[in-house]
Amino acid sequence: MSDTREGVRYRPADLIQHATALFAAAGCDGDKPATIASRLVEADLLGHTTHGLALAPAYLRDLESGSMTARGEPDVVADRGAAITWDGRRLPGIWLAAKAVDLAADRATTHGLATVVIRRSHHIGCLVVFLQRATDGGLMVIVASSDPAVATVAPFGGRKAVLTPDPIAIGIPTDGDPILIDISASITTNAMSDRLRREGKRFPGRWALDAAGRATDDPAVLFTNPPGTILPTGGTDHGHKGYGLALLIEALTQGLGGFGRADTPTGWGASVFVLVIDPVAFGGAGEFRRQTGWTAAACRANPPAPGVDAVRLPGERGLARKRRALTEGVELYPGIMTALAPLSAKFGVDVPEPL
Amino acid sequence: MSDTREGVRYRPADLIQHATALFAAAGCDGDKPATIASRLVEADLLGHTTHGLALAPAYLRDLESGSMTARGEPDVVADRGAAITWDGRRLPGIWLAAKAVDLAADRATTHGLATVVIRRSHHIGCLVVFLQRATDGGLMVIVASSDPAVATVAPFGGRKAVLTPDPIAIGIPTDGDPILIDISASITTNAMSDRLRREGKRFPGRWALDAAGRATDDPAVLFTNPPGTILPTGGTDHGHKGYGLALLIEALTQGLGGFGRADTPTGWGASVFVLVIDPVAFGGAGEFRRQTGWTAAACRANPPAPGVDAVRLPGERGLARKRRALTEGVELYPGIMTALAPLSAKFGVDVPEPL
Repeated sequence: MSDTREGVRYRPADLIQHATALFAAAGCDGDKPATIASRLVEADLLGHTTHGLALAPAYLRDLESGSMTARGEPDVVADRGAAITWDGRRLPGIWLAAKAVDLAADRATTHGLATVVIRRSHHIGCLVVFLQRATDGGLMVIVASSDPAVATVAPFGGRKAVLTPDPIAIGIPTDGDPILIDISASITTNAMSDRLRREGKRFPGRWALDAAGRATDDPAVLFTNPPGTILPTGGTDHGHKGYGLALLIEALTQGLGGFGRADTPTGWGASVFVLVIDPVAFGGAGEFRRQTGWTAAACRANPPAPGVDAVRLPGERGLARKRRALTEGVELYPGIMTALAPLSAKFGVDVPEPL
Repeated sequence: MSDTREGVRYRPADLIQHATALFAAAGCDGDKPATIASRLVEADLLGHTTHGLALAPAYLRDLESGSMTARGEPDVVADRGAAITWDGRRLPGIWLAAKAVDLAADRATTHGLATVVIRRSHHIGCLVVFLQRATDGGLMVIVASSDPAVATVAPFGGRKAVLTPDPIAIGIPTDGDPILIDISASITTNAMSDRLRREGKRFPGRWALDAAGRATDDPAVLFTNPPGTILPTGGTDHGHKGYGLALLIEALTQGLGGFGRADTPTGWGASVFVLVIDPVAFGGAGEFRRQTGWTAAACRANPPAPGVDAVRLPGERGLARKRRALTEGVELYPGIMTALAPLSAKFGVDVPEPL
């Protein structure tokens, strides 16, 4: 399999074109194929390899089974200018989230801030890929997501899963590159746990509890019956912090959306919260950039602790990786192109040539 | 000293009356004395003993020195309905924050959500005391704060302080008691570090770095020259999560306020961000409560991990403590009434009698 060889690289535009063709062939209408494809590849460019093209086969399977809706628009549940709620009708989450950020950005320039909440979205992939659309316009943006059909994280002190990792991504404009934060309310993600388990690897720390509630670095405990749980951020030491963050994100997504765990939904999905804030409406765009730029510079100039080569800003490494990938091509995580090959054949879509 | 004896209790109303008289005697006008006093005592009732009446002597000192402004209103920097910015003129932060939550709650019922950002506030104390004013009305509320004149937390990987603990409190209505979350972007707070150091105690874990960047449980490293730093939430293992949260909170408070570290301010102060969200404008108040209530119940019913007696919701223990204190009286942390005694004498204010 060519993509498992060291150093095989692809032109990002070729990967986008390929994925666009796949999602169009799978029945997605309008700008959905191009939006989904570009955001999946963007995740790979930034180095989020569990949430890039690696997701495409599962998305295409859900389109085929009807668990992902291929066509149409979300239903508008409520719209009060700065506060919008959509029913996503299980449409592609990446497309819904991208559209939600655009709408929130537009409304924020009028109201100072605006929120779009989406219930019954399909999975939205890597949250960080939605940020630069807002930060490029000088706007601050928050995207958070939970999946009410899945539970892998226990409340702090417990050992039965109630919550999802509940990721939150934050884009902050500065006087230079934006700060692109991508964190979650649990120490690690479902996708990373699954990858490590399949590869027979361990977490770098005791990031999970087994079903009996004992801390471990073995991701296999998440796949026993009954299953163990991923620890909230802070772990056994101060996991009440991640627990609090998870409850916040579940309330912003499922609570405001009015659809969630109480409805025992099935199928891979997401509840989404988007908030865009326009600094112009507050203390001013220039002042905002002056403050965030000062703090960013102070972080970058920080003397590193032993064993650390340099202090970085969130997103700094990803943006550097993306710049390199745009000129030198992107190296996909092993197995991705292999998994796409039969789907490409099935839909009669040409497989991209490596560089 | 009577208040260092085990079991000495005070009637909360007596403590509020006492502190109100102190802040009035120190020159605060209007409803400031009563608001400050009630919120400080509320922190003690909830068990946040480092951020209750323990703060009063320092606040009174800053009023005397003029570092806290005693009288008047904040200046309105910007007001776009759902987005309001105040210059706090170093007025009492507790009073400003309480007023900001009231205004944001009022505006949120019109716009669906509303934000008040305050620059140049004085210290706002315990953030959790501002939540119930909003949650009692069915509103979700977030209060975050940073102090641009202070730095005790390093960016993840670094060893020189750039950030503050950057607390964030979140109030979430449910079908029963509200969830009252009180977390911060660092593992512990400045006040707790200071208390443990004075008492010759250690942190429960390696929550700090010494000036050379080595992890330690000794709070004394924060008071050396050069000083060590408090670790971000996640610690040496996954502190990029707390680092990201800190950058978010610094941007929401100082960035949007247009005043912060770039201005090298001096004096004990705060930059404040308040967001209130009305579920009525989204998926509906009943649906919101149904989702948050379901999740709350699932957390409370969770089987505890070994060594844990029961899984609790954030705020549950504090609300129980408050109910008990309202009937049985509140036991202050040792030393608080002793510290207030000379100020009471100076201002000619009667010291409350223990029960």
